[in-house]
Amino acid sequence: MTFWSELHEQPATLERLLDADGRRAAREAAAAVRRHDVRYGVIAARGTSDNAARYAQYLWGARNRLSVALATPSLFTAYASPPSLDSAVVIGVSQSGHSPDIVAVIEEARGQARPTIAVTNDPESPLASAAHVVFDLRAGPERAVAATKTYTAELAAMAMISAAVAEDEVMWSLLSRAPAQVAEILERAAPVARLAGGYAPADRCVVLGRGYHLATAFEWALKLQELCSVGAQPFSTVDFEHGPIAMVGSGDPVLAVVPPGPLGPEVATLLERLRAERGARVLAIAPKDARVRGADRLDLPSVEEWTSPIVAIVAAQLFAAHLSEARGLDPDAPRGLAKVTRTW
Amino acid sequence: MTFWSELHEQPATLERLLDADGRRAAREAAAAVRRHDVRYGVIAARGTSDNAARYAQYLWGARNRLSVALATPSLFTAYASPPSLDSAVVIGVSQSGHSPDIVAVIEEARGQARPTIAVTNDPESPLASAAHVVFDLRAGPERAVAATKTYTAELAAMAMISAAVAEDEVMWSLLSRAPAQVAEILERAAPVARLAGGYAPADRCVVLGRGYHLATAFEWALKLQELCSVGAQPFSTVDFEHGPIAMVGSGDPVLAVVPPGPLGPEVATLLERLRAERGARVLAIAPKDARVRGADRLDLPSVEEWTSPIVAIVAAQLFAAHLSEARGLDPDAPRGLAKVTRTW
Repeated sequence: MTFWSELHEQPATLERLLDADGRRAAREAAAAVRRHDVRYGVIAARGTSDNAARYAQYLWGARNRLSVALATPSLFTAYASPPSLDSAVVIGVSQSGHSPDIVAVIEEARGQARPTIAVTNDPESPLASAAHVVFDLRAGPERAVAATKTYTAELAAMAMISAAVAEDEVMWSLLSRAPAQVAEILERAAPVARLAGGYAPADRCVVLGRGYHLATAFEWALKLQELCSVGAQPFSTVDFEHGPIAMVGSGDPVLAVVPPGPLGPEVATLLERLRAERGARVLAIAPKDARVRGADRLDLPSVEEWTSPIVAIVAAQLFAAHLSEARGLDPDAPRGLAKVTRTW
Repeated sequence: MTFWSELHEQPATLERLLDADGRRAAREAAAAVRRHDVRYGVIAARGTSDNAARYAQYLWGARNRLSVALATPSLFTAYASPPSLDSAVVIGVSQSGHSPDIVAVIEEARGQARPTIAVTNDPESPLASAAHVVFDLRAGPERAVAATKTYTAELAAMAMISAAVAEDEVMWSLLSRAPAQVAEILERAAPVARLAGGYAPADRCVVLGRGYHLATAFEWALKLQELCSVGAQPFSTVDFEHGPIAMVGSGDPVLAVVPPGPLGPEVATLLERLRAERGARVLAIAPKDARVRGADRLDLPSVEEWTSPIVAIVAAQLFAAHLSEARGLDPDAPRGLAKVTRTW
């Protein structure tokens, strides 16, 4: 039951992260981002943490005007040809803090005299030791193979750094609602099990997102791959329409996040077309007031678009966990996976 | 037969691109990249062109020490919150040159007084008009829905810009071999049809790459999605091992590129493990001298790692085209896809 209990810890984990210590860590990180000679950000991360980086790419771009590059760690390790990081602030994101390639990016950045930040669940890890500023996720030991609480904690950390860079009290106030919004998703979980059962026979699906929720689509797909052995393929709706849409035929499942905000209607229209023209079976995580004709629904509570990835992914985690069980698997024992680092 | 004829045009397209006019275009682009105030690159692209951008991220990082960010176009369009591009050189890559969101990124960059480059097959397109420097791919009209010759031309363009920035005659000389290497792949295509037939029953597969060949994995997967309606999932081998590997069971196809160079043995070892421990069916595009026990093979001619993505993808295109026919589909008429822009 490790997976389920970590999934349900998320409101408490977020609440703790948003306390005075968390704000202090965010302000320290913000000072590095705001250094006068910083022109862009480089985030080094893998897997789940890379999806949190994808969220930061949108949020920091929109709210802090910071361009963000996702690092290519093999340039720093296997090829030993790291690029110049001149003018960059460099952020490593890793739950365990033990990924050698992420540590290598931070060490190179320090060697180039650039400011560095570690976002990690282990303040004693090599990643934390290598960086100037440590943002400790304080999510408690993560024992499940598939990450849940550390993903939402990483998203929240990225959002807290953004609010601290912007010095925006409205952002802090909206962020403080996230624990209750996540709790609301968890309390209304009952219909998810029934819904998930209907998707059990499918061995593959596409998972669509757009804007801030590209991160949600990638993380949702990763949970489906790890927990359900489903060939889940994440796409931006724009990229999807230009080619991969050819894969979708009658009865094929299409999972999607309809974002609150300006892109919602565009995504909803695409989903309606996929159902009407291709006979796709559509499941949408969507705001209550968003109309998506003929789709199965997981409702989002009323939430700002930029904080909604913290909330929406919890519905996706629940769906993946129930689908895992409906497919006769055990969310605590994905096929052949071992927790890579047992320390935290 | 449009698709097949464009596929076979590639040696001629590359030969033309590498002529004196092409070198001149590369030198003009290089001047923008080398501007004294450029600290990093931002590349805006979608679909196939985004995979060429992924290649540039590795090549420009390794050979020119330039950090490269892949743009998030929706920040420039739907959200109207573009990040600061201070210190960046901004490159738009689009076969048609008509993607409004890619044009929007270039226009914003000009508004911010940053140097801009258009890499496109239409020098009269809105993208070309918006940019300071135009690198014309001169690949001739692309009529097939699934891109082939414009992808290899885009890769070559990125490599030519890199060679021009580095002012490295050895790079130019190695690049000049690409047309003959691609021709060699096309001449030895006979076994591919037979091989592809064996993979026809599978509705999904994973496609693995690493380093420079992450681009190849993504582009190979895209061809399989478009042409074969196969749920093809591209991964970096590192990300794959940390979670998605759970999807692979007995008989499941794993397609991969074993790169020439330092990462080859690591990838080959993973493929042997996937076969031995999980019963995966492995198909590897690999250098002739690379050993991958028990794998089906598509051999690469002897080629430098950094130019090999231009050559390897042609084997992947051939495989996808034959698989399309083996699955009873027509590479010229992917299910429900229309060419988005009919101009070129």
